[in-house]
Amino acid sequence: MTTTAELPRLTFSDYQLSVDVGFWEELRRLKLMMWKLEEPFASLHGSIRTNVSNRALLTPANVVHLSSAAFEVAPSEHGAVNTFTEVVDVQMRGKVKNYNFPEGLKSLDSRNALLSLVAEYMLKPALADNLTAEEEEESWSQIPFCMVSMYTYIDAKSYRFFHKEAFPSIALDGSILIKAAARESADSLPFSLSAAQAIYDHGVARLRSYPERGCNPFLSMCSPPALPVFKALSPRALSVAEDDAAHVILCFFDFSDAAETLCLSARNLITCVRLAVPSLTSLSVYALRSGGPAKSLFLQLAFDAVDQATVTALKLRLTGAAFDKVQGVNWKEEFPSLKVSGWRKKKVEGLDLGAFIDPVRRADSDSRFNLELMKWRVLPSLELSRLADCKVLLLGTGTLGCNVARNLLMWGVRHFTLVDRGNVSFSNLARQSLFTFEDAKQNKSKVDAAAEALRSIIPSVVVRPVPLTIHMPGHRVDEGKLDEVLGEVHLLEELIGNSDVVFLLTDSREARWMPTLISAACGTPVVNVALGFDTYVVMRHGVPSAANSRSNAVRNGGAAATAPAALGCYFCSDVVAPTDSLSFRALDEQCTVTRPAVSSIASAIAVELVAEVYQHPDGFCCPAYRESASGDTDTGKCRLGVIPQQIRGSVFSHSMHHLCGERNPFCTACSDKLLDAYRAGGAAFLLRCVNTPMDIEEVCGVKELKESWETDVKEMCWSSDEEWVDS
Amino acid sequence: MTTTAELPRLTFSDYQLSVDVGFWEELRRLKLMMWKLEEPFASLHGSIRTNVSNRALLTPANVVHLSSAAFEVAPSEHGAVNTFTEVVDVQMRGKVKNYNFPEGLKSLDSRNALLSLVAEYMLKPALADNLTAEEEEESWSQIPFCMVSMYTYIDAKSYRFFHKEAFPSIALDGSILIKAAARESADSLPFSLSAAQAIYDHGVARLRSYPERGCNPFLSMCSPPALPVFKALSPRALSVAEDDAAHVILCFFDFSDAAETLCLSARNLITCVRLAVPSLTSLSVYALRSGGPAKSLFLQLAFDAVDQATVTALKLRLTGAAFDKVQGVNWKEEFPSLKVSGWRKKKVEGLDLGAFIDPVRRADSDSRFNLELMKWRVLPSLELSRLADCKVLLLGTGTLGCNVARNLLMWGVRHFTLVDRGNVSFSNLARQSLFTFEDAKQNKSKVDAAAEALRSIIPSVVVRPVPLTIHMPGHRVDEGKLDEVLGEVHLLEELIGNSDVVFLLTDSREARWMPTLISAACGTPVVNVALGFDTYVVMRHGVPSAANSRSNAVRNGGAAATAPAALGCYFCSDVVAPTDSLSFRALDEQCTVTRPAVSSIASAIAVELVAEVYQHPDGFCCPAYRESASGDTDTGKCRLGVIPQQIRGSVFSHSMHHLCGERNPFCTACSDKLLDAYRAGGAAFLLRCVNTPMDIEEVCGVKELKESWETDVKEMCWSSDEEWVDS
Repeated sequence: MTTTAELPRLTFSDYQLSVDVGFWEELRRLKLMMWKLEEPFASLHGSIRTNVSNRALLTPANVVHLSSAAFEVAPSEHGAVNTFTEVVDVQMRGKVKNYNFPEGLKSLDSRNALLSLVAEYMLKPALADNLTAEEEEESWSQIPFCMVSMYTYIDAKSYRFFHKEAFPSIALDGSILIKAAARESADSLPFSLSAAQAIYDHGVARLRSYPERGCNPFLSMCSPPALPVFKALSPRALSVAEDDAAHVILCFFDFSDAAETLCLSARNLITCVRLAVPSLTSLSVYALRSGGPAKSLFLQLAFDAVDQATVTALKLRLTGAAFDKVQGVNWKEEFPSLKVSGWRKKKVEGLDLGAFIDPVRRADSDSRFNLELMKWRVLPSLELSRLADCKVLLLGTGTLGCNVARNLLMWGVRHFTLVDRGNVSFSNLARQSLFTFEDAKQNKSKVDAAAEALRSIIPSVVVRPVPLTIHMPGHRVDEGKLDEVLGEVHLLEELIGNSDVVFLLTDSREARWMPTLISAACGTPVVNVALGFDTYVVMRHGVPSAANSRSNAVRNGGAAATAPAALGCYFCSDVVAPTDSLSFRALDEQCTVTRPAVSSIASAIAVELVAEVYQHPDGFCCPAYRESASGDTDTGKCRLGVIPQQIRGSVFSHSMHHLCGERNPFCTACSDKLLDAYRAGGAAFLLRCVNTPMDIEEVCGVKELKESWETDVKEMCWSSDEEWVDS
Repeated sequence: MTTTAELPRLTFSDYQLSVDVGFWEELRRLKLMMWKLEEPFASLHGSIRTNVSNRALLTPANVVHLSSAAFEVAPSEHGAVNTFTEVVDVQMRGKVKNYNFPEGLKSLDSRNALLSLVAEYMLKPALADNLTAEEEEESWSQIPFCMVSMYTYIDAKSYRFFHKEAFPSIALDGSILIKAAARESADSLPFSLSAAQAIYDHGVARLRSYPERGCNPFLSMCSPPALPVFKALSPRALSVAEDDAAHVILCFFDFSDAAETLCLSARNLITCVRLAVPSLTSLSVYALRSGGPAKSLFLQLAFDAVDQATVTALKLRLTGAAFDKVQGVNWKEEFPSLKVSGWRKKKVEGLDLGAFIDPVRRADSDSRFNLELMKWRVLPSLELSRLADCKVLLLGTGTLGCNVARNLLMWGVRHFTLVDRGNVSFSNLARQSLFTFEDAKQNKSKVDAAAEALRSIIPSVVVRPVPLTIHMPGHRVDEGKLDEVLGEVHLLEELIGNSDVVFLLTDSREARWMPTLISAACGTPVVNVALGFDTYVVMRHGVPSAANSRSNAVRNGGAAATAPAALGCYFCSDVVAPTDSLSFRALDEQCTVTRPAVSSIASAIAVELVAEVYQHPDGFCCPAYRESASGDTDTGKCRLGVIPQQIRGSVFSHSMHHLCGERNPFCTACSDKLLDAYRAGGAAFLLRCVNTPMDIEEVCGVKELKESWETDVKEMCWSSDEEWVDS
């Protein structure tokens, strides 16, 4: 015993860690998008760049690298095996756990955390009983002796990361002693140099094939002068060979940089072997290293046999136990002989990456932050991208347009087309929330100023400013300007056709007419907002367009007639052709004189309505929610709430209610007859309507209807003496 | 007759007009603030700077100047008579009419417009019958022979002015012939040079005394070699002197620059004299001019007698007729012999003053534009300045703070104090409507960034950014920081004390506690906004503070007990002391996870609620509006609508309703006991509550209350077999 006491002890050296900024970004993304409120042990894959040539390179061998790919489930498929390069990116597998609260990370039980991981991922497979020889080999080949574990808390808002890492390493009581050590010298090696090269080459081949297996241990049977024979590592193989102990060498790649020490993974390997073969008291190891056999290290190790009771107790604890139970073991008390180490630092480290992230990208992703948080607890099924990816067209960039754009930004929308012909004036400043004093001073066009403002908030938005007049029935176009105006109408048609949703935010009834008609014809959904002094209405126009529903009807042999009544448009409730309401308007009629809140509230509701529609499986075709006396109905609802056709509200009474208007067959903006006439006549037809608005009523049949009313009225019996009697 | 035909005709020269920018500004202001939708004939006062010395000055004599003072009712009081200077600012009186529509100005009937004015203001007094000699003199002294009239339409939004002016001048059919003309030569004058000087001096004295009387006509009786005798002008005086015609001279100041012509006002004077004395066929006039007698002009005029029928018809038309009726006269048909002229230009002129107005001032006034328009038609009695002048304190400059500030800007509020401790982060951008990408990139403090943003919208706002922590019960302050924190509490007390209204816009319950308590103690009204995921509550805390109502009660011998129950605060409905709810909060709990609309709507409502309160005679003391089953009540209402205590809404159901919470005697934020303890202990007491929140419950009596409940519960008979039975 005194002799062994004098032998040198085997020591182990730490790994170094290098973490990419991309790793932290991805960690934060996973937290926000995937894990949310959960605190799972997620897979982690570090990599160690290992020089497998016979030339010593200067790169440190013990650096574990974590990149943005560290969380991918099967990264080995990504880095294809390359037999030609001198380096192999060996994988270090592990787990990362992110805490919801800083308190969770602070109160982490260091000993238990590492022991649980080692027990679950190393000891459980190492001590598995009742396996065939093949199963045992397979099981051992998968043990992550090279393990990294990380515990984090993220202050996602400010890109601050709090983290603590370990390379979990388990040991048993009592030292491992070095009976003999040899390198670079054939004399002291128990095998020839060519055997050494053969072992090294075998190790490299394995490493290239299975970089995900970390140190890739295997057994080498050496009977010099014959070249060694290789065998997969398993306790059984080791036991069988035990009789011939001198000849069995446990080979593995070692990522230590220090000459006389092994890496922490080697300790895990040796400990697992000792626990699996408790009677073992000596072991020959050959630690393969960067730089070939010349740098590799042969050691003959001696240690005490493991107490069989400990192994039995461990097996009892681990066999069939879920990870939860493994974590629940009181390791210190039950298994005092198991030692664990590997923490990089004692304290939690903090990292502030705010300054390293590209600010433009950060503004984009961070501004979706509060949206993502909705999915954590309140609405996990929310499909944010549906709305966020949509291309919106805002007709009007005044008080409503500015507010709607801002509310859309909040929902993550990034594609805007802005239409307005006006310039920013000083009187706009207080109300039109995208404009500044400078815009008014320079009398910028509203669409340009609004586009700049949106970009100054979220630089990644895609905004197309279009200074365009929306032509209106009753506002005659002079002969000389017909071509120019026709071009403007074509542009409006193109913009509406290319948009996913149109917001109608103009300030007169007649300015809503042409966009309503074009949208109905090409099936682009419309959300319409109109304001009174202290009242507002927000409504979605019915879709699909008449064409769609009618062609459906044709296809289905008229079955579409049983579908619920189509929803109306802004003009459906009032079958009078729009006409010039702008001339002879006093100043207060030219400006929308409304209480400030009216626009703020209506704009917000309009955007919410669209957000709701985008969560409904039928989208804009979803039926209108109606309050029924008999209780709630399920139609016209989505996970965000009810989806009425119209929401009307008053700031005077601080109230809000729903309405539903059905499609009017005589509508002067969306009736079938009108849509047909537009399809036949195109922009030229629209222009005719602009110049002679009464034609609209004629096309729609309103004129005829009015005449028949008058005939009816004439045919009635009028008598001032008689009271009206209900028949 | 042939001789007269060969005599030269008397001609008249135009006035020139010079208008200050200030005139247009004032015109626009009057339109917006005073006239609104009305189109009155408002008084107009031009001035003609007249050199009354004997030295000829180079300034043109015929320039009529309009300044910002042109609309004042009694401008003669402003320009005190100055007998020492060589100039007198003679007044030209008239009328300005501003049209609501450009169409009104375009379709102005030129002839009728001027004739009506002349008839109303000159002919009516000139032809008045049945006056005493004194009355007649007085009446004639007031006739505005020097008249200016202006017709305008203002595009107030863009500072564009459309205008057309006239110096109305009336004539009768048939020419006025010059029988004799004389100047600078004693030979041709029918009076001596010293008589000429005497007449001139008398004229100047009158002009100095009565600059508002324009050309200041008077009669001069000349009997050389005696110096002339002066008499006030009246038809009677003229008729009496007619027998002695050669000696009676009609003297007046003439503002013509041309040697041989008189100014248009002289034509009005002569026409009025001819109509008042129809038999008159000749008249001697002495036109006094800048530069003394040397420049003045004597004329002997001859003309036809006026048709008596015309005069009779005119008197019939005008006597006792209102201006409306005068305007209704078809002048061309009824009085073809009356000729009118004086338009400066045939067409309406346009003037774009946008660029001349100081943009900072313009931004300030134009941004109140839409507000002023409210008073035109919808709410003439609205008192905008009540709210606009108030000093607001916003506690919290996040999503709510930004939106509330913007809504307040819209109501014309200009004094802000912003309190927040945070900095702008990228995740704020989409939602917090005052911040830009650059603010986040520079990690600016929120209060500074918000202040800059408000100034960039309306440069005249007065914003005080205060980066301050609001201390919260349960968030312990360390011993070493007590002094610093005490200073922060003092600052909060000062800010609340100096504000007219406090908006509570923080994102946790406990952050609302201290401001609620301090505000209750010092009587500053509080409006509180709190958000859920898709719900919101906006409420006003009850005022006056307990102190006020109690001291009232004492003064009234307890009569205050009959007053309606005081309104509660945010904490009144839940008598549990606030405590740390911020630790152990996951990311989604740290950030306010709400649907975008919730903040937009709630902020808008909060500001409207304040706007309503400011229109109520009792201000924040007004009772809460309650919907009653029996119909509407009149309490809790103002011209802007109902004023509930709480408005709660949901974006899920698109609904809104009112609630009213009364003051809770055990409230942990505003109960009398607590207010007393705070008044006694001051900031130190608040700090104690921060460190030991349970003290709050003890002070309020909540602890005692809870204990008595527990005793009650213990004394109940518990039996698991028995059902609860309602007694």
